[in-house]
Amino acid sequence: MSRKIITVGRQFGSNGRAIAKLMAAELGLNFYDKELIEMAAKRMGMEPEQFAAADEKGANPWLYAGNHVQNYPNHMLPINDVLFNVQSQVIRDLANRESCVIVGRAADYVLRDRRDMLNIFIYAPMESRLKTIQKRFDIDEKEARNRIRKQDKDRKYYYNYYTDSGWGEMENYFLTIDSSRFGIEETARILAATVGAVTF
Amino acid sequence: MSRKIITVGRQFGSNGRAIAKLMAAELGLNFYDKELIEMAAKRMGMEPEQFAAADEKGANPWLYAGNHVQNYPNHMLPINDVLFNVQSQVIRDLANRESCVIVGRAADYVLRDRRDMLNIFIYAPMESRLKTIQKRFDIDEKEARNRIRKQDKDRKYYYNYYTDSGWGEMENYFLTIDSSRFGIEETARILAATVGAVTF
Repeated sequence: MSRKIITVGRQFGSNGRAIAKLMAAELGLNFYDKELIEMAAKRMGMEPEQFAAADEKGANPWLYAGNHVQNYPNHMLPINDVLFNVQSQVIRDLANRESCVIVGRAADYVLRDRRDMLNIFIYAPMESRLKTIQKRFDIDEKEARNRIRKQDKDRKYYYNYYTDSGWGEMENYFLTIDSSRFGIEETARILAATVGAVTF
Repeated sequence: MSRKIITVGRQFGSNGRAIAKLMAAELGLNFYDKELIEMAAKRMGMEPEQFAAADEKGANPWLYAGNHVQNYPNHMLPINDVLFNVQSQVIRDLANRESCVIVGRAADYVLRDRRDMLNIFIYAPMESRLKTIQKRFDIDEKEARNRIRKQDKDRKYYYNYYTDSGWGEMENYFLTIDSSRFGIEETARILAATVGAVTF
């Protein structure tokens, strides 16, 4: 099998992460999500917690004065930008080394010039996402709706801030799929079959 | 194998029709596109040519006074609405009878209550569609761009006129795919693998 790098974008509450993880297992590929922060932190000689608050968030221009990283060449760069830069390098190194599945972190943009990259976006109708998030955090519908709005907004802002592309817009992906139709296990199996059929 | 009804929406110039046809062949399913007009015309005792001009076009309210069908229960219904109604019945009858692939004609909306229906949307970036249409009709880029705009507008108007859904909007489909990435044969093969992995 030739090298395959699968990047997965996902709406909050679509179960995209769980699906990507199962798909990776089915395809026998390594899976990277939060691990990327740890790898980026390690590279900077920092603790992952120092980066966690900036994960998948664009820099806030109003906070530009604070929250920088001392041991980065450009001291004035906000921590979010440092995380994006270091994480992007981690992603590029991973893709040079192995086939893998990478969730979020604008990895499809970072790897946009690779011919062996497939980008997938996983979405679901709002009713389905509300149910998932209510159950996941044991919260009521109103709070679930707020969290979904906030999280999607953060992801979109992060993606659009660091790329010249649009998060969650069909035209920017090779494939998009509604995860609510068949649930986590089945969607993972369907995506593994899809990706398995691709030959570069 | 359980029954599968695959409906395919497609941007003009995405090669969606050719891909759907190959996918149907690969899956061993019957394929319906223009055939639907002939079947609808036959049911009405009309010539297909009488319906052809109304194919995948919503009724024009400014022409409401003309262009009706005499042998339809409601004489005042525009020919486009008659075609939609009769074609929808043809589509429902097909789905009751066999697994098949149906292109366009808002078939996914017509069959929206069936659990064994999968709706797919095929798109491609504008540059790719321009090349396809220029070549297909031996026209220059400007004319190709006009045809694409016109044809997509017609399809969208038709779909949105007869349904309460939005044509070409990711959220309304189970799966969407960019056909420019791997071309006609490969995309058909990938979709056949995807659909083949679905079990209802």
